[in-house]
Amino acid sequence: MESKGYHVAVVGATGAVGQQMLQTLESRNFPISKLTLLSSERSAGTKIFYKNEEYIVKAAKPESFEGVQIALFSAGGSVSRELAPEAVKRGAIVIDNTSAFRMDENVPLVVPEVNEEDLKLNKGIIANPNCSTIQMVVALEPLRKNYGLQKVIVSTYQAVSGAGVAAIKELEQQSQAILNGEEFTPSLLPVKNDEKHYQIAFNVIPQIDTFQENGFTFEEMKMINETKKIMHMPELQVSATCVRLPVVTGHSESVYIEVDKLNVTADQVKQLLLEADGVTLQDDPAQQIYPMPAYCVGKNDVFVGRIRKDLDQSNGFHMWIVSDNLLKGAAWNSVQIAESLVKLKLV
Amino acid sequence: MESKGYHVAVVGATGAVGQQMLQTLESRNFPISKLTLLSSERSAGTKIFYKNEEYIVKAAKPESFEGVQIALFSAGGSVSRELAPEAVKRGAIVIDNTSAFRMDENVPLVVPEVNEEDLKLNKGIIANPNCSTIQMVVALEPLRKNYGLQKVIVSTYQAVSGAGVAAIKELEQQSQAILNGEEFTPSLLPVKNDEKHYQIAFNVIPQIDTFQENGFTFEEMKMINETKKIMHMPELQVSATCVRLPVVTGHSESVYIEVDKLNVTADQVKQLLLEADGVTLQDDPAQQIYPMPAYCVGKNDVFVGRIRKDLDQSNGFHMWIVSDNLLKGAAWNSVQIAESLVKLKLV
Repeated sequence: MESKGYHVAVVGATGAVGQQMLQTLESRNFPISKLTLLSSERSAGTKIFYKNEEYIVKAAKPESFEGVQIALFSAGGSVSRELAPEAVKRGAIVIDNTSAFRMDENVPLVVPEVNEEDLKLNKGIIANPNCSTIQMVVALEPLRKNYGLQKVIVSTYQAVSGAGVAAIKELEQQSQAILNGEEFTPSLLPVKNDEKHYQIAFNVIPQIDTFQENGFTFEEMKMINETKKIMHMPELQVSATCVRLPVVTGHSESVYIEVDKLNVTADQVKQLLLEADGVTLQDDPAQQIYPMPAYCVGKNDVFVGRIRKDLDQSNGFHMWIVSDNLLKGAAWNSVQIAESLVKLKLV
Repeated sequence: MESKGYHVAVVGATGAVGQQMLQTLESRNFPISKLTLLSSERSAGTKIFYKNEEYIVKAAKPESFEGVQIALFSAGGSVSRELAPEAVKRGAIVIDNTSAFRMDENVPLVVPEVNEEDLKLNKGIIANPNCSTIQMVVALEPLRKNYGLQKVIVSTYQAVSGAGVAAIKELEQQSQAILNGEEFTPSLLPVKNDEKHYQIAFNVIPQIDTFQENGFTFEEMKMINETKKIMHMPELQVSATCVRLPVVTGHSESVYIEVDKLNVTADQVKQLLLEADGVTLQDDPAQQIYPMPAYCVGKNDVFVGRIRKDLDQSNGFHMWIVSDNLLKGAAWNSVQIAESLVKLKLV
């Protein structure tokens, strides 16, 4: 079976992440014997090419998963909550890119560079973490392993593609309207179903997802809780401020951490990250080398730079972490989980 | 004399900040008996209207300051270094918006809401702090006064107008080129005289001003050192990561602080800031109310929101601070200093 490949389903095949999943499966040459492309009723009938072959996207139903071995879900939480159990019932392993099951204690939440072994505990569903969380833990794991980790304070600089194709369009249309001196009415960001919508072009919105009782947004709580779960550190101190920017793709993060070990140098941290899986170190201030979203788009790695020791706290470090939110933040991490499942003979 | 007003000079009258200084002097109806507009040789001859009267901008020279009582400088550090002492020699008080004298121990560095009394120590030159520093200390001073302050970690989201009129043009031209699918060559940001220039439209650049030996940029070190000086707290722990965004005007800051006093609540912090001079509290998550640069442009206040207690550190708070970098960050703070000098009979 393995030589021929697997029956793979992509749920949400017409969305921003679904498109990237297909491109990633193709570029990685993932072993596929049969490909089923699924979507909402609304997008059913769309034609998509995969490896020069035309596929017609079908509306996702419980029966769609008959015979499917690996199902990649990225069609929103409610679709996953409804159909992921149906897929599992029919024998598929689900890799879910929504927040539906991430904090479920029976569901492993996996970033292969950090906790690939957790895949062995899966009961059919594996959750792909939030985009902002993934890129941060990839950069922090080598430090945790070598120096211990006590505290993380992150401020994010997030791209609109995290809110889907419609948000990209809104940014582009608003930008053009402002450059033309024309009127416009924001209708999508920060949160489609919230009451108020704000300008995103040439602006900054300090709200991603809805507000929780404690004053943090759900996006911020995702970063906090998911980081602890992935790293197996319920005691880790994490806080986050999540901010939406007029950038199409590529999330950036300004991260402050405190490690356990004293007297670690910035050069030691750089050396660790230079050798770390999935990380590209871009850190040479004298040459103005540091990561930026516009130059990270389309790349699978997590880019880290601006690493420097805090001026007061001897175990404190600052760093700047950038990655393509549609790739390592979503599609690539999902496909990477599928590759790990194959490698560990779990599928 | 006071009833008639003062002989005021504006050096750098044609620049982004100079223009705002003139608008602010006009809207505040600052008592001016004579107005002298100065600039570089290059911009000399430009015509500018002030209160419906036409002025011709002249090239700034030592003799330009004969009879000037208040000189507002915003034409770059080298101009200030050369001409501010000449203005003082001729009897003027200089309010300097460049970084030339900010860390000079003989020069008060003043944000009126924080340390107006320091004006009394002036020996002719008063420095206006960096834009990012000003808005932060206005928001933090009420907390320092009531609860004590131990630690500040700030990540900035800075607009291009901080880099002048040419940077605004570069952002607009690049944005249009990208929307048209056209090629372009970045030529200004992050730092005009640095070797490399990067795309700013739909991108994020984690460099403002040049890099220092310790891996921090000069902008970051300005925030660190100026905050300590303005607050008279050399022992305060401050760190900063300064980032340039595709926003025209309005700097935002994600700020984490630790106060001395334990058991302070977020509601108490909000109440303090509601009553604070120069602060507008915009903090109602349930109504999606928080500060954003696009909605703060043209206003003198510092806007604060997203105030919440850290989930682990009982003396830790997060907040989001936004202000018009050309007004409170530059022109308005300078004019406000001039008003304080009049009020305190120091001019």
